[in-house]
Amino acid sequence: MNAPTTDTQQRILDAARELIYARSYADVGVAEICEHAGVQKGSFYHFYPSKRDLTLAVIDAHHEFFKEKIVDRAFATDIPPLARIERFAKFVYEFQVQLKEEVGRVLGCPLGNLANEMATQDELIRERIEELFRLAQSRIRHVLEEAGELQGENLDATARAMFAYFEGVMMLAKTQNDPEVLRNLLPAMAQIRINTQS
Amino acid sequence: MNAPTTDTQQRILDAARELIYARSYADVGVAEICEHAGVQKGSFYHFYPSKRDLTLAVIDAHHEFFKEKIVDRAFATDIPPLARIERFAKFVYEFQVQLKEEVGRVLGCPLGNLANEMATQDELIRERIEELFRLAQSRIRHVLEEAGELQGENLDATARAMFAYFEGVMMLAKTQNDPEVLRNLLPAMAQIRINTQS
Repeated sequence: MNAPTTDTQQRILDAARELIYARSYADVGVAEICEHAGVQKGSFYHFYPSKRDLTLAVIDAHHEFFKEKIVDRAFATDIPPLARIERFAKFVYEFQVQLKEEVGRVLGCPLGNLANEMATQDELIRERIEELFRLAQSRIRHVLEEAGELQGENLDATARAMFAYFEGVMMLAKTQNDPEVLRNLLPAMAQIRINTQS
Repeated sequence: MNAPTTDTQQRILDAARELIYARSYADVGVAEICEHAGVQKGSFYHFYPSKRDLTLAVIDAHHEFFKEKIVDRAFATDIPPLARIERFAKFVYEFQVQLKEEVGRVLGCPLGNLANEMATQDELIRERIEELFRLAQSRIRHVLEEAGELQGENLDATARAMFAYFEGVMMLAKTQNDPEVLRNLLPAMAQIRINTQS
């Protein structure tokens, strides 16, 4: 997915990201996105032939943001591997605290939200999120590999389980509208171990 | 929430449950629910003043169904506590396999889906799901209590973590549209232990 090349396109993308993340895919229409971005509808369709195209760009923009601002910083190699996962939990908590201060709500994981809403309704959106979820699991797997404690199937299963746990805790925090759920439960992501032989 | 008292009301509720679970809250309108149920709109509003009222009834109906058909059977006391959690994982897997055969899709957790879509948009829906999520966590806590391995904060945190893990694995299975994700990852729910002192 290409990044926006003009200021107008960037404004459309930013408006869509913000509105859809705060509510849902279905609840936000093209007219509202245009109004929020201060652009004409003709201009919208010039850059994004459909709401689905825009949503695919929104998904990639969320992923880029999360990777740069949270994952890359949390997973930097200045501390031991498992401590990086705890740092990741801390950064995620801090980000959702900030969101709650700004918009009054814990918004959870933007990709998880869209996956749950759209996976049965739009195959391209589902596939793109599946791809990014796999990427996230493989990043966790690399950290676990470096920790050296797990091998083979247990390594794979534990990485996937840690990611599933992350998404579940995000959903719980959103459901309770309480970032403290993240502070209490998310650091334990580093404690999960799956033994596939048991 | 009261159960339907007439056949018409039951048909409306069943249609709404089926349609919203397969797609989303926003994507299913009152007109489509009435058509699917074979009832007039006037009849709909007689039983459910709003789509929100209907959705609260849908949430309770899903909860009742899941409790009776899956949780109560899985958590029966004929086998040891932790084996019950593994049996729960097996029943959930079998149910999603059946859904995939029937509708071509893994639909995930109906309450988790609605929580992610609606938590920021409807406070009554969010609160009702939060309440049922707490009930689920307390049922898991009882099983763990009986297992006798964990106490105090570790018992609470582990029950909540197991529930979060369940929701996360359901989301992952829905995103991959693959019930095998459940077969591979969900039994490990019984392996999760959170040590709050670490």
